[in-house]
Amino acid sequence: MSENLSSGTDDPLSDAEIQAYRQEINELDRTIIEAARRRSEISHLIGRTRKASGGTKLVYARETAILNQYRDALGPEGVPIANALLQLGRGRLGQ
Amino acid sequence: MSENLSSGTDDPLSDAEIQAYRQEINELDRTIIEAARRRSEISHLIGRTRKASGGTKLVYARETAILNQYRDALGPEGVPIANALLQLGRGRLGQ
Repeated sequence: MSENLSSGTDDPLSDAEIQAYRQEINELDRTIIEAARRRSEISHLIGRTRKASGGTKLVYARETAILNQYRDALGPEGVPIANALLQLGRGRLGQ
Repeated sequence: MSENLSSGTDDPLSDAEIQAYRQEINELDRTIIEAARRRSEISHLIGRTRKASGGTKLVYARETAILNQYRDALGPEGVPIANALLQLGRGRLGQ
């Protein structure tokens, strides 16, 4: 993530504070992206194991529990995050 | 996250493998949720600092860069994740 973007303030002290906060957000974004990628890989492994043993590809009760967990922790915005993570577990990445 | 949910297979070996994978996914979900909550808190601090110094509440170039980062790393599913994280940074949590 570029550090050259405007902080949205002309005040030097506030600017320095915002840049420091942004560094922390950049680290959190890397953590989230890395966890999402790893999550997707494991989901694919689960799907393959289950299919190879003659089971179902998805377990809806488990998906619903995950959706509720994200909603409970993050509020309404947790729902699109959980849905996208579940979709990543079915889709392209990690195949 | 409950560990009593069906793994979707009747094969004992596959079942044990799936339960172990799920444990790792549960840890990743805790990591993602915790990072999303912290991210939201910092976003609010940034918004407050910027407003207090007479700057704008949002910096759209920065939001667009974050959106592109998630899309580049995760594909199309990165977009709803980034949008929800950005919304969390404007909204309720951490206020």
